[in-house]
Amino acid sequence: MTDLQFRRAALPDVPAIVGLLADDRLGAQRESPDDLPLYEKAFTRVEQDAGQLLVVGERDGTVLATAQLTFIPGLSRRGATRAIVEAVRVSSTERGSGLGSALMRWIIDECRSRGCHLVQLTSDLTRPDAHRFYRRLGFVQSHAGFKYEL
Amino acid sequence: MTDLQFRRAALPDVPAIVGLLADDRLGAQRESPDDLPLYEKAFTRVEQDAGQLLVVGERDGTVLATAQLTFIPGLSRRGATRAIVEAVRVSSTERGSGLGSALMRWIIDECRSRGCHLVQLTSDLTRPDAHRFYRRLGFVQSHAGFKYEL
Repeated sequence: MTDLQFRRAALPDVPAIVGLLADDRLGAQRESPDDLPLYEKAFTRVEQDAGQLLVVGERDGTVLATAQLTFIPGLSRRGATRAIVEAVRVSSTERGSGLGSALMRWIIDECRSRGCHLVQLTSDLTRPDAHRFYRRLGFVQSHAGFKYEL
Repeated sequence: MTDLQFRRAALPDVPAIVGLLADDRLGAQRESPDDLPLYEKAFTRVEQDAGQLLVVGERDGTVLATAQLTFIPGLSRRGATRAIVEAVRVSSTERGSGLGSALMRWIIDECRSRGCHLVQLTSDLTRPDAHRFYRRLGFVQSHAGFKYEL
C-alpha cells in the first residue's frame, strides 16, 4: 500500500475512471467507454455540485480505484448528515491487495471529518463477495435496496 | 385523494415533518421532536442545497406525508443522474388510504421531469410491509443496503 494516494478526481482522470466503471461484470453492459465527451460532461456536473466528491485512488500516477460520495443534509435522526457512496470500483489487477479496504477507510475518515453521522451504500444482490467485504469493514447489512428505472 | 397536494416543504412545515418522522416505530427512538431549533437548522441546510428537494403532501392545509429527494449526477451508466429517496413517511392515520402511493407516483414523475434515469431507495429489513409497497409500485428489490454509523 506504499505511495497510495486518495484525492478528489480531476478532468484528466475521467478516462481512467470510465475504464474502471467498464471493467466490471455489470458495468461492461452499461458503459460506453469510447464516448469520452459524454463522461466529461457528466464529470462537469459532478464537479459543479458542492454535495458531490468524486474520489480516485492512485499509485505512481496510475488511477486504480474510484468512488463517488454524496453528502445529504436532512431532518431525520436529529438533523443528521449522511453520506451515500456510489460507484465503488477497484482495478481488477488489484483485487485482494487491500486497496479496496484502504479506499473505504479513507472514505469513512473523510465522512467523519465532514461531520457525517452515517455512511451508507447499496450493493447489487449478485455481488456476495462485495457484501462480505463491506461487512468485514464494519458496515451493517440492515436495509433492502430498491431501484426504479425511468 | 381529493385536494391532495404535493409541494416543496417550507420552514413552517418543519414541526409537521418532525411529527411524521417521530410517529414511526424506528423514528420514535431516533428523534427529539421538542427540539425544534435543531430541526429548523437542519431544514435550512437542506433548503440551501440545490441537490435536495424536501417534499410534503397535504390536504386542507394539513401535512400528512413527507419524503426527501437527492439528485446525484454521476459518471456511471453513461453519465446518468440518479435520485435517492430518503425519509419517506405517511401519517399513521392515512395508512392504506392510497396517499403513500400518490406520494411515490408524484416523486417518480418529478424525477422523470428532471431527467433522472433511476430512482432508488433503501428500506429497513424490519419493514416487510414497506418492501411489498415499493415492489407493488414497480421498484425492483435488486440491492443490499449497508450502513456504517460514525
